[in-house]
Amino acid sequence: MSSSFKIPFKGRGHSYSQEEIDLVVEIMSDSDTLTQGKYLQLFEQKYREFLGVDHAFAMSSATSALEIAAQLLILSDEDEVIIPSHTYTSSAYPFVKKGAKIVWADIDFESRVVNAKTIESKITNKTRAVVVVHLYGYIADMPEIRQLCTDNDLILIEDCAQSLGTSLGGKRAGTYGDMSIFSHHSQKNISTLGEGGVLVVKNPKFAEIVPMLRHNGHLGYQDQEYYWKPAMSNVDYPKINGNYIEPNNYCLGEPQCAVGSMIIDRVDSVNSLKRSRAIQFIDDLAKFQQLIFHRVDNERHNYQHLVAFVQNDKRDQFIKKMFLDKGIQCVVQYYPLHRYPYYIKHDLGEADCPNTELFFDSMVSFPFYETMKNYEIEYMLESTISTLKSI
Amino acid sequence: MSSSFKIPFKGRGHSYSQEEIDLVVEIMSDSDTLTQGKYLQLFEQKYREFLGVDHAFAMSSATSALEIAAQLLILSDEDEVIIPSHTYTSSAYPFVKKGAKIVWADIDFESRVVNAKTIESKITNKTRAVVVVHLYGYIADMPEIRQLCTDNDLILIEDCAQSLGTSLGGKRAGTYGDMSIFSHHSQKNISTLGEGGVLVVKNPKFAEIVPMLRHNGHLGYQDQEYYWKPAMSNVDYPKINGNYIEPNNYCLGEPQCAVGSMIIDRVDSVNSLKRSRAIQFIDDLAKFQQLIFHRVDNERHNYQHLVAFVQNDKRDQFIKKMFLDKGIQCVVQYYPLHRYPYYIKHDLGEADCPNTELFFDSMVSFPFYETMKNYEIEYMLESTISTLKSI
Repeated sequence: MSSSFKIPFKGRGHSYSQEEIDLVVEIMSDSDTLTQGKYLQLFEQKYREFLGVDHAFAMSSATSALEIAAQLLILSDEDEVIIPSHTYTSSAYPFVKKGAKIVWADIDFESRVVNAKTIESKITNKTRAVVVVHLYGYIADMPEIRQLCTDNDLILIEDCAQSLGTSLGGKRAGTYGDMSIFSHHSQKNISTLGEGGVLVVKNPKFAEIVPMLRHNGHLGYQDQEYYWKPAMSNVDYPKINGNYIEPNNYCLGEPQCAVGSMIIDRVDSVNSLKRSRAIQFIDDLAKFQQLIFHRVDNERHNYQHLVAFVQNDKRDQFIKKMFLDKGIQCVVQYYPLHRYPYYIKHDLGEADCPNTELFFDSMVSFPFYETMKNYEIEYMLESTISTLKSI
Repeated sequence: MSSSFKIPFKGRGHSYSQEEIDLVVEIMSDSDTLTQGKYLQLFEQKYREFLGVDHAFAMSSATSALEIAAQLLILSDEDEVIIPSHTYTSSAYPFVKKGAKIVWADIDFESRVVNAKTIESKITNKTRAVVVVHLYGYIADMPEIRQLCTDNDLILIEDCAQSLGTSLGGKRAGTYGDMSIFSHHSQKNISTLGEGGVLVVKNPKFAEIVPMLRHNGHLGYQDQEYYWKPAMSNVDYPKINGNYIEPNNYCLGEPQCAVGSMIIDRVDSVNSLKRSRAIQFIDDLAKFQQLIFHRVDNERHNYQHLVAFVQNDKRDQFIKKMFLDKGIQCVVQYYPLHRYPYYIKHDLGEADCPNTELFFDSMVSFPFYETMKNYEIEYMLESTISTLKSI
């Protein structure tokens, strides 16, 4: 699709440095193994240091991280999990698969993410966990939400798929929750060669079994006299609080881990670049009140995506003109999950989320990635202005 | 571990050509997207052509392919699936997770894989499917097994994780089954950067929904007037014969697909090289009757692994001397699955598989990968001879 646009909504978030490319070449040429090796260890170590956490595990995708998070909850059909309806489907469906009833939380209209109030209104005596999604790259009100979850004995999961590197109150996104997940999918501010994710857990009992859940149930033998006896490694069936948990294969290859271990060093600079460009773009459009942006000029937002609410029901007209007259591929994002057939068929089609409906039905997401050229942003700005004037 | 050995049992099967490395560099530098792009299409097309099949789908791993195969069976607790106990755990545990009772089939002592007789003896009126594993790179007796499954109305799944490129009766491994899976893990004869797999299905109804099952339930809208209405793509809950199937995220990134699309062109040459080296090694040891190899000097075997049965209960002594005196890391492979705690805890610890027990308890797997140097093979041969003479 991208070829027919002057400025496509690109499937890729950033470029690789020569050093990152060279490291992949080196691994392809020389490494002893292409998976489960030293770069897995290095990537996880650098992730732990970056976030200041004890346990971080590389995964094949953020969805895989969420699948394991959902397993670790040991859910029953009676359990409810509160999740925003305004998010990508992977934030929710792993919990559906494990049998939970999803209760949809609304977003705050201004910030486009959930807050303590919208969550609190959905808590019942069946609520087990809350998934907070820092959508578009903006951290929700985590101190309040953390307190709410602690007060109500709820497990808090942060979906930081879009918010790596942001911080609030001196703490990075992903350090408030009991578990947190990160994405390094192609469209993200940093990508591990297209697919990849990370799971962070606080509970050391969880940390002990996550490597087994990731790698087909494998674990080493203790006190093995010879490396081949009785086998090269064991395969067990781990337990949490008396409940068995099934293994998976969510391993991430060495070239991907290696790239991740390098680019994490420039997350803050990619985020800064995107934020300063976003703020400039928003400020340049300040007098056009038809577009309502969420302006946050600090580390709480990384502008993974640049989105706006289009006033007066003009969204479709705006996108159509940007597309047909200007060749710019604006898109809509995060169709309310409760409207998708998947959730309707799971009897999860009901939601009391007026801001979610209102925002989605009038929102626009601009093409916005690290590799955009200044002249492309300039052209997008001019095109936006002339389109707004014409509608 | 490998650093302490002169010849390690390496975690990597082959080297990449300069063209393969250049292609990854090109994608890292220039591609529009790093996942779900043109190299996914190309890889799948080349796979279909290579095997001569209608439907092949790239997956994050062979385990992922087996997970989807297990889902497509729509298993109930009453159903039995016949699987060899002498295989890697991923051949079996996806079917355990979906609720089947595994019935362990024994291997033939000479070929080290199942055959129609060992399978037939395990068929009951509850048997739904058979998983045949072409272990070590040798295709089982597929014409007979195919007939047996057809006669008994059983679904036949070929686990070709180790046997890509082998053929029997003019047909490639993976073309006899109703579904087949392939692995491109780091140790395989060809690897997609450490992790990766492929699922082949014959049923066009399965082929229609596999892309959704792989990619979070996504599918395109039909007759969409504008690309953004009602959303960028749909998320649905696919059905097979009235049964819903849950989606997953098993996507494989573009650099991995690109590498796969190139190296599939040299599978046959990697296989030939390994086979001719294996035959030479076996023939050079012909007068040492303490080692029983499976010698197959044709395309039915690709010698993914080079294994032997060690006579007279001398296996441990042999490995120990090769390790301590020669610095060669021989290993044991495929601990009978029914002995692992995972399967015992699933009440699958019972098996009537005497050849499996006998073979595993006296087997040795030699280091054997495409990148071994001739002098390393020469050294391994001399070391084997002197070790055999000494025990």
